[in-house]
Amino acid sequence: MVVFNSYLQVLQHCDSVTTDANHVSFRLCDGTQVGTILPGVMDALASYNQTVTPAPFVLTGNTVTFGNHLETMDQRTQAVSALMDQWRQDKTFPALAGWRDELYAVYGSDGRPAFVMERAATPLLGVATFGVHINAFTRDTDGKIKMWVARRAATKPTWPNCLDNCVAGGIPYTYSTKETVIKECDEEASIPHDIAARAYNAGVVTYYTSTEHGLQPEAQYVYDLELPIDYQPAPKDGEVGCFYLWDLDQVKEKMLQGEFKPNCALVAIDFMVRHGFITADNDPDYIDLSYHLHRTLPFPGPKKAQ
Amino acid sequence: MVVFNSYLQVLQHCDSVTTDANHVSFRLCDGTQVGTILPGVMDALASYNQTVTPAPFVLTGNTVTFGNHLETMDQRTQAVSALMDQWRQDKTFPALAGWRDELYAVYGSDGRPAFVMERAATPLLGVATFGVHINAFTRDTDGKIKMWVARRAATKPTWPNCLDNCVAGGIPYTYSTKETVIKECDEEASIPHDIAARAYNAGVVTYYTSTEHGLQPEAQYVYDLELPIDYQPAPKDGEVGCFYLWDLDQVKEKMLQGEFKPNCALVAIDFMVRHGFITADNDPDYIDLSYHLHRTLPFPGPKKAQ
Repeated sequence: MVVFNSYLQVLQHCDSVTTDANHVSFRLCDGTQVGTILPGVMDALASYNQTVTPAPFVLTGNTVTFGNHLETMDQRTQAVSALMDQWRQDKTFPALAGWRDELYAVYGSDGRPAFVMERAATPLLGVATFGVHINAFTRDTDGKIKMWVARRAATKPTWPNCLDNCVAGGIPYTYSTKETVIKECDEEASIPHDIAARAYNAGVVTYYTSTEHGLQPEAQYVYDLELPIDYQPAPKDGEVGCFYLWDLDQVKEKMLQGEFKPNCALVAIDFMVRHGFITADNDPDYIDLSYHLHRTLPFPGPKKAQ
Repeated sequence: MVVFNSYLQVLQHCDSVTTDANHVSFRLCDGTQVGTILPGVMDALASYNQTVTPAPFVLTGNTVTFGNHLETMDQRTQAVSALMDQWRQDKTFPALAGWRDELYAVYGSDGRPAFVMERAATPLLGVATFGVHINAFTRDTDGKIKMWVARRAATKPTWPNCLDNCVAGGIPYTYSTKETVIKECDEEASIPHDIAARAYNAGVVTYYTSTEHGLQPEAQYVYDLELPIDYQPAPKDGEVGCFYLWDLDQVKEKMLQGEFKPNCALVAIDFMVRHGFITADNDPDYIDLSYHLHRTLPFPGPKKAQ
């Protein structure tokens, strides 16, 4: 567990990737970079590519590009799927042990999906992923904010027992962000549709993190959900161990003690900034916090209005 | 007047500087870039520099640096002041006709002021400036937000008659952001201290704009101020012509018609994003909006907690 002295350190621990100039870029045929591949994965990709005819990928010194024959979204999806199925079968990478059967879209420069791929495999190609995080909170009669914080289940494959935002989830291909919010509120916290529907989109945080599985540029659509003061979320699908209702000083204390999953701490800091708990007058790093919360990612994202 | 088809176009009109690679960088002796100088100003600076002994600035092909003898903040302040006084006297640049007798700090990499300079002269050196913008708003009994929008006075030297945020102002050297908010609320909108004190810091927008006077990288600390439904701000110091109370659809309409001062439109868009009026599901450019609202500026800012 890492202990921090400031919110800036918490954010730097999450938004930690500063350069990928020496890594291999993963590109569409039109040259758009959609991901970044680290050396270990690159070696395995080169080996795999020799076993398939025609080769699905074109490899140069510092670029992997889809073969020109993979012209459609379905063809690209199929090529990546075959690769990951092989690696999963061969147990090439631990990342694939966490297979979720959940498809994420990877977007081209036109904002449309260029292909879709298994969620657990995204760090291997370093592609950008998109999710929702919901800050559930209440206000005292004097207006003071308390925040619902989740403790992740001890059985979660990633970040067991760490603190988390009340509700969060990846956006499945074909879901809108609000539909994802409503689905996850039910699954993770038993929050019924009529209450979950009050959640509103209050921004998007973007950051570039890395884990043992690879590089992870991420965009999380942030939703705020003010709950009635007597309402309690409850675990449902086993992903959450329990929920706490803490004032923001308590959230800060746990955060600096390193108890949060790093990107959930980032989302909580964004909430504290937007609601006047962290201010330009009380934090000397204020502008740098904003930069880390809104990192401009060098990869395309979705361009669609639902 | 420029008419826009989307919020993204509104933001791109303000956050419009995409590169300054061919311009001259203005640096402190330790190499920190604090500004960017355009060719017309560079010629005048070179001429001026020859008239003073020892020369206050060291000029190379693409860099202007303070002379090594200007070791203290006061010395650097004095050197820039003498330069601007000369240009003002000679009527070298129209920017200086708008002299305000208001000092802005220019920060070094340690977050402390490296020197201070006249506000009207900042675009000539392309240094970053810092201000506050206050979104004053009310909520209907059903929770629907209406926003107070100011019409700038016809006599304002910059952007006369344009729409503006309810209250805004630069941060004078020695003021905290909240002190600036309270001062400007009184001066521009007759909002008394006890009401202005309810304003809370809800983030910072950063963008890199340009005007006829030069390059202007700016950070605006954003404050939200919910006003009682029966309260009306009133012009006081002559900077505002009148105030309107509009629902967000009306604000959007005026914004797309190009009636807002560009950076005030940007601040209003940030408000609409934070309060769920613009969402990931209703605007295809959502992530790009966030990038333009939170541009990482390549210049240091203040690092102080009040």
